[in-house]
Amino acid sequence: MQEKIPYKIYLEENEMPTAWYNVRADMKNKPAPLLNPGTGKPMTAQELAPVFCEELIAQELDNDTPFIPIPQEILNFYKMYRPSPLVRAYCLEEKLQTPAKIYYKFEGNNTSGSHKLNSAIAQAYYAKKQGLKGVTTETGAGQWGTALSMACAYLGLDCKVYMVKVSYEQKPFRREVMRTYGASVTPSPSTETAVGRKILAEHPGTTGSLGCAISEAVEAATSQEGYRYVLGSVLNQVLLHQSVIGLEAKAAMDKYGIKPDVIIGCAGGGSNLGGLISPFMGEKLRGEADYQIIAVEPASCPSFTRGKYAYDFADTGKVCPLAKMYTLGSGFIPAPNHAGGLRYHGMSPVLSQLYDDGLMTAISVPQTEVFKAAEQFARVEGILPAPESSHAIKAAIDEALRCKETGEEKTILFGLTGTGYFDMVAYEKFHNGQMDDYIPTDEELAASFASLPQL
Amino acid sequence: MQEKIPYKIYLEENEMPTAWYNVRADMKNKPAPLLNPGTGKPMTAQELAPVFCEELIAQELDNDTPFIPIPQEILNFYKMYRPSPLVRAYCLEEKLQTPAKIYYKFEGNNTSGSHKLNSAIAQAYYAKKQGLKGVTTETGAGQWGTALSMACAYLGLDCKVYMVKVSYEQKPFRREVMRTYGASVTPSPSTETAVGRKILAEHPGTTGSLGCAISEAVEAATSQEGYRYVLGSVLNQVLLHQSVIGLEAKAAMDKYGIKPDVIIGCAGGGSNLGGLISPFMGEKLRGEADYQIIAVEPASCPSFTRGKYAYDFADTGKVCPLAKMYTLGSGFIPAPNHAGGLRYHGMSPVLSQLYDDGLMTAISVPQTEVFKAAEQFARVEGILPAPESSHAIKAAIDEALRCKETGEEKTILFGLTGTGYFDMVAYEKFHNGQMDDYIPTDEELAASFASLPQL
Repeated sequence: MQEKIPYKIYLEENEMPTAWYNVRADMKNKPAPLLNPGTGKPMTAQELAPVFCEELIAQELDNDTPFIPIPQEILNFYKMYRPSPLVRAYCLEEKLQTPAKIYYKFEGNNTSGSHKLNSAIAQAYYAKKQGLKGVTTETGAGQWGTALSMACAYLGLDCKVYMVKVSYEQKPFRREVMRTYGASVTPSPSTETAVGRKILAEHPGTTGSLGCAISEAVEAATSQEGYRYVLGSVLNQVLLHQSVIGLEAKAAMDKYGIKPDVIIGCAGGGSNLGGLISPFMGEKLRGEADYQIIAVEPASCPSFTRGKYAYDFADTGKVCPLAKMYTLGSGFIPAPNHAGGLRYHGMSPVLSQLYDDGLMTAISVPQTEVFKAAEQFARVEGILPAPESSHAIKAAIDEALRCKETGEEKTILFGLTGTGYFDMVAYEKFHNGQMDDYIPTDEELAASFASLPQL
Repeated sequence: MQEKIPYKIYLEENEMPTAWYNVRADMKNKPAPLLNPGTGKPMTAQELAPVFCEELIAQELDNDTPFIPIPQEILNFYKMYRPSPLVRAYCLEEKLQTPAKIYYKFEGNNTSGSHKLNSAIAQAYYAKKQGLKGVTTETGAGQWGTALSMACAYLGLDCKVYMVKVSYEQKPFRREVMRTYGASVTPSPSTETAVGRKILAEHPGTTGSLGCAISEAVEAATSQEGYRYVLGSVLNQVLLHQSVIGLEAKAAMDKYGIKPDVIIGCAGGGSNLGGLISPFMGEKLRGEADYQIIAVEPASCPSFTRGKYAYDFADTGKVCPLAKMYTLGSGFIPAPNHAGGLRYHGMSPVLSQLYDDGLMTAISVPQTEVFKAAEQFARVEGILPAPESSHAIKAAIDEALRCKETGEEKTILFGLTGTGYFDMVAYEKFHNGQMDDYIPTDEELAASFASLPQL
């Protein structure tokens, strides 16, 4: 294609994906199944039913169907804020004076401020379809909780959110956004649940973690009639829903004959990265194309780069099934001065398997470097990025600068998962020079690994 | 056209406007000129030069040229965040069960969170072109200040913002966004300027107003070498730049054969409304088409609906030229509990003339009604609107409900100028039932009108 690439590529409505892509169908080594911690055997659909919605369980366990049609109601909701733009970062390229071509898929142009809405509406839809009253969940930075609140408001479902305490305190306005959408928000750990009280007794003064909040949300769902638990990352079903990011990105690139050499995404639980890379990884798995795929994680919560690939609890309270994943141990809690999101101790089982199979690589970056990259990006590309997303920005800039040295004209695609409008406390710390780079010691990690279950 | 209208209409890059439209060229009654308060005579370009950039003065005084080409550098910047989507509010229509067809032009998908960026980049560009070091300005809700900070960061200009004190205090995170873009931000009135000190002495404890902040910013610009003042609304040049909103909206509608019956915009100083309506008003002025055009203003700051059409000072400190406009008097300061932006005492001279000529109408709405409409809109359309924009939402919903009663299938277009992510303090007040509806009494307005200059 010779035509000039526009600054932003938007698909037409009729070019938007109508089915999610399930990368598991093309994986030779399937992700390891969830295990019942009591029996050590794979969880059955029946065992999962008290916690999750039925159709979502089917999606969770389906390792074979490559394409799963997106219900019309969800497609309609997607049309409210999708397609998201694929942006050519002309201004950043010029600033860096790099021969690399940089693209980013921007998922922040919706009120949740991130890609999380893609799975929130799907999970809320299936809950509604099952005739449930409501759903419970956890949220860290608040993006997932906001997304779920929006989806529930749209469908008329009750929504109860347990928010990691440190985020609840750092992001008071997030709570008001969720309230605007009619959700109730509780800082976690709380005294509302048995597991919350237990965690508070063992770790008084804890600032919380996603693992704690998950335990509370699961307890709240299973102890009330007509409620189920929903999760914003890690699970196979979430990566399935998030494949819409990659499908759109690939369709937009194909439209202009662009093929990325390097694909970069930030990785906490893996939902954005898994979604962005899925169709590209599918081609790689089928031997149709090759791509360099890089996961970027915070140095303060380095599950890929310093974790173990092992069965572990998905939550601190150990009420969830065991998942085989790269993990820092379910007792791991990132330092409170860690501002950049991506606080989960484990990693998506799908991505963990792909990483273990050498199909992708991972790097970790310290948070002050991440905020430097964020500010640089904001000033030339105009978008104020979320700290989470800025991990990918940092890696993309580094890759583009390497291209400048070598003269390579690589095409880089990265996921810009969201905006940082509710992260100004962290930006303020950065501006005031009050941000530091906590990196866990080997001893700390060893202590945390000791909490891994013995199977 | 028979094809179904998509949820969002995005123009292609090559369909974007390449010239601004100057509605003054088609006005039979031109807007009254700015007057020198000393001589009572029209301000000359020479007299304006210490305050404004040269090319912007030329645009300000040009009542004749219908189209002014947009410089390539500005077009490039526009491509970073434009075209903005024209959205068909299918979900809102369904919720209201109205036969009306509702469209909104959404200007919030950029980091400034509003349409203000359209003029900020233009004004910063001309300042840069003139070889200036920097610019000064005022900001109310913070959207204009953020927009100008972004534009200045992009072009490498210094940026000094005087922020209305009540907003500075209610919106601490806005300050950090501006700092991210390298701007300095001072709460107004401040002790930094002579006019600020004078206002503080006369009104101790004042929460500030746009009029005060303008006076300070003008003083700061004229007392430093290499600086000029820029303004985010009211001025003719700003309406010119904002015409990009209406030009895009009209192009998107024309593409699908849609003709609006009613066009609605919120009105503070008039920049959004003036920009949105300009090409439609042009057709109306030339007798080519007819449209019902409605300005919506807060009941607490009702310049159109309760103001006088008279020459007045543009600023509280009376350092600016006189402008003929609908005004509440330059001493008017809205009640501090007024949360919805649109706090300026006057109204764009262009819009004032059009309104006086009966070419548009105006209504005022109380703020609790505005926030109710905002929340309703957020829950069905997904976007958390700025309080300012929500004035237009309120009016559009009312119009759609009237259509439901009469059965009319009117096509409604309104301007959704921005997002409310930095307005959560106001939303919180609304959620907690702590918001009330202050409406100035006739006596208060009479006292304020007493400050009008005698010519």
